[in-house]
Amino acid sequence: MRSIVSFYICYLLCLGLGLACTVCVCVWNSHWRGGFAWDGSTLQFNWHPVLMVTGLIVLYGYGAVVYRVPLTWGQNKLPWKLLHAALMLLALVLSIVGLCAVFDFHNAKNIPNVYSLHSWIGIAAVTLFAMQWVVGMAGFLLPWTPISLRALLKPVHVWMGGSILWLSIAACISGINEKLFFVLPGYNKLPPEAYLGNFLGVLIVAFGLVVLKILSHQAWQRPDSVPQDLVYSPLLQDERENE
Amino acid sequence: MRSIVSFYICYLLCLGLGLACTVCVCVWNSHWRGGFAWDGSTLQFNWHPVLMVTGLIVLYGYGAVVYRVPLTWGQNKLPWKLLHAALMLLALVLSIVGLCAVFDFHNAKNIPNVYSLHSWIGIAAVTLFAMQWVVGMAGFLLPWTPISLRALLKPVHVWMGGSILWLSIAACISGINEKLFFVLPGYNKLPPEAYLGNFLGVLIVAFGLVVLKILSHQAWQRPDSVPQDLVYSPLLQDERENE
Repeated sequence: MRSIVSFYICYLLCLGLGLACTVCVCVWNSHWRGGFAWDGSTLQFNWHPVLMVTGLIVLYGYGAVVYRVPLTWGQNKLPWKLLHAALMLLALVLSIVGLCAVFDFHNAKNIPNVYSLHSWIGIAAVTLFAMQWVVGMAGFLLPWTPISLRALLKPVHVWMGGSILWLSIAACISGINEKLFFVLPGYNKLPPEAYLGNFLGVLIVAFGLVVLKILSHQAWQRPDSVPQDLVYSPLLQDERENE
Repeated sequence: MRSIVSFYICYLLCLGLGLACTVCVCVWNSHWRGGFAWDGSTLQFNWHPVLMVTGLIVLYGYGAVVYRVPLTWGQNKLPWKLLHAALMLLALVLSIVGLCAVFDFHNAKNIPNVYSLHSWIGIAAVTLFAMQWVVGMAGFLLPWTPISLRALLKPVHVWMGGSILWLSIAACISGINEKLFFVLPGYNKLPPEAYLGNFLGVLIVAFGLVVLKILSHQAWQRPDSVPQDLVYSPLLQDERENE
């Protein structure tokens, strides 16, 4: 019981911090950076941090912890698998649109693409995320994947999931840091916008810590089997496998 | 047996990548950035990346995986605890000297300290590391700490250890990215130094992935108990506790 209460405290913290990250990155780019457009101007660039933080960090984190909610444990796993896959797909699409925003902006301004370390780490995170989504879809949702293969894939999928999150956080921290140096000549005097940007970075790190804590806590793992009387006819395959 | 072979492959990779990070950051700062001094000049700054990468990343990572080496499992844990604590202390001292290098440099040049997101994340990582070392020392090495408290502390210590590593990696990635923008006006044309700096970032991420893989792999955890005949009289307390 105490474990469930501490889970829900962590889960509320996770939801709250994710929301705070989203609000913070939106306020920064709409109020302090002039808002949004899709016209090759810096207003187009502003979509980049908003979509990467919302997709690659917040939605990704929300999607990652779906299975940990104890409320879902007595139920068939399939709907939660579909929710996990859907949240991750939405996160992936937002991240790809976020990359398109910055590529388009660079092309319009004749700025080379993918030269900074920030961009290398960010591209690596999104590429691994796309591969993870495809392999996860094929491995855990398609009916013809053998259960033995699923059992083999699962620890790799879980470990890769956590690694992509901390890689994404490293990309976001370096990106916010770079952006603040670019747009704030007085960054070292810590004007209000510098506090806002730094605070966004701190929020992202705090969100990541809570998500990775939830993912790594043994007692909060979804149990492998569910009571027979609660299992409804699975759509594709027995959902009680070790996944 | 297969698990032990795969551990040693990962462990060799970990040692090799750590060595490659150290060589790369030293070559970058000695050959491309002019070398080292302690005189308030940019040559003093050059100690900062070298000491942070060597201490906060490489030595920290080497220290973190000590207990995972199967060769040590048949032996009393105390000497390995002392090695773990000593490696971590050396890592902490190098990191603190690395921070002193940049504070001293900033003060000599009248540049404000601790304003960038990079510095906030880096300072947070070193502060948490120092707290982790003190709590670890008090909790796991002092003779009067009750075994029940050790068992309570252990999961927090392990989780915090991994979190400090990925926080340190985020700090290093943002720092290398910032440095390359500062010192390379033609960074976007990817001159050789840009490749070297970006490559260092990639090596650090690869090292972090391998270390966190080793730490999270269940089969590579040191077993809790050791055979009676192999236990020699412990220095302070029964070392067979769940720690």
